[in-house]
Amino acid sequence: MIYELYYWPSIQGRGEFVRLALEEGAAQYVDVARESGKGLGISAVMRMLNGRSDTPPFAPPILKAGRLLIGQTANILQFLGPRLELAPKSEAGRLWTHQLQLTMADFVVEIHDTHHPIAGSLYYEDQKHEARRRAAEFSKHRLPKFLAYFEKVLTQNGGGKRYMVGTQLTTVDLSMFQVIAGLNYAFPTAMRKAARRIPRLLALHARIPDRPRVAAYLASPRRIAFNAEGIFRHYPELDAR
Amino acid sequence: MIYELYYWPSIQGRGEFVRLALEEGAAQYVDVARESGKGLGISAVMRMLNGRSDTPPFAPPILKAGRLLIGQTANILQFLGPRLELAPKSEAGRLWTHQLQLTMADFVVEIHDTHHPIAGSLYYEDQKHEARRRAAEFSKHRLPKFLAYFEKVLTQNGGGKRYMVGTQLTTVDLSMFQVIAGLNYAFPTAMRKAARRIPRLLALHARIPDRPRVAAYLASPRRIAFNAEGIFRHYPELDAR
Repeated sequence: MIYELYYWPSIQGRGEFVRLALEEGAAQYVDVARESGKGLGISAVMRMLNGRSDTPPFAPPILKAGRLLIGQTANILQFLGPRLELAPKSEAGRLWTHQLQLTMADFVVEIHDTHHPIAGSLYYEDQKHEARRRAAEFSKHRLPKFLAYFEKVLTQNGGGKRYMVGTQLTTVDLSMFQVIAGLNYAFPTAMRKAARRIPRLLALHARIPDRPRVAAYLASPRRIAFNAEGIFRHYPELDAR
Repeated sequence: MIYELYYWPSIQGRGEFVRLALEEGAAQYVDVARESGKGLGISAVMRMLNGRSDTPPFAPPILKAGRLLIGQTANILQFLGPRLELAPKSEAGRLWTHQLQLTMADFVVEIHDTHHPIAGSLYYEDQKHEARRRAAEFSKHRLPKFLAYFEKVLTQNGGGKRYMVGTQLTTVDLSMFQVIAGLNYAFPTAMRKAARRIPRLLALHARIPDRPRVAAYLASPRRIAFNAEGIFRHYPELDAR
């Protein structure tokens, strides 16, 4: 099976959670918008969004797996997890994995909305004032709350403190790595303040890039750098104090 | 199996998507915070949130099903769907159902944030100015976009235009009913403007309360009324024009 990932070519965005799973899972895949040629490129993503299908997607990322077209990041990861040996075997374990993935998705919305509190369709510059206020509340309340929660999950994991779920790597660990990496980039000051309280999360974040496949991916041109278009943006004025 | 639902007792909120599935599915359940007695009441929800568990939830709603503790609304509905005969049988059908459920969850966040664009921890009165701006963008762009999408889903459903997925009622139809009901309450002006373009969604919304179990539920004291504490709030200044 060669998977096709439909996502914007110039940002990590939500597609990155899927890319990390595909890479660590050694899946064969095409990052459609980042290739050129027939049926490739960004126009292929647009066609996918505007096409007529029984199961039309609302937004990228979209994964094509044979005849299946799957949307919503957490849904894609739930689908890929067992196929790439990145999910627990039991139903209870999978429900829990997915629950964490969804809680991380909620966190990601809040991270994004620090720079777009009014509308995604407006420029940051047009909502800078509101962004400052939202980011201050975020750094003070939401960031510490979410991080403390995920630290608790690691601490209380019956399978040990090396992984978020059980005794083996899952998509949740890869996604958690991405969230911490993004927060370190976007909110270095807030993260420095939080560090003391999240030793296990930081250790997890430091460990993931030691995995050979992740390391190879991060060093490759396939890994897009953080930038001022994605979810995680470093605007110093939003990381004040 | 007697399910236990842990959710706030005075709002519909995200718990309502679960309540509607439990009711239509004729499940036996206890709405824990709305009952009094030993192990019941709102203190039971707080204990659940602060308790020590291998799978600690971040926030309600939480469903207890035997030994399983399941968080995240869409995750709960994905779990309940097959058990309450409110999900398709095939894997493809279930992935699609869940994808729609997650897209609806995204929509619900945006609906909520119209009145809380800065922080959930602040009063509406303290973010009224920003709320006005966000709600205007929402009514103009996001509300029509999401509704047009769900109308398209109904229109393109290979199983007919009566249900969102396939040829039978799923949790997605019940949730869609709730979203339309909430929007009619919160944004009557914007919904009047949108009506012409979403005939099938409105027909679905009108049909769901004809189902005997839903009808019994909606007429019962178990159904909490819309109010100014939940996701869907009617602030006339946010529904202007």
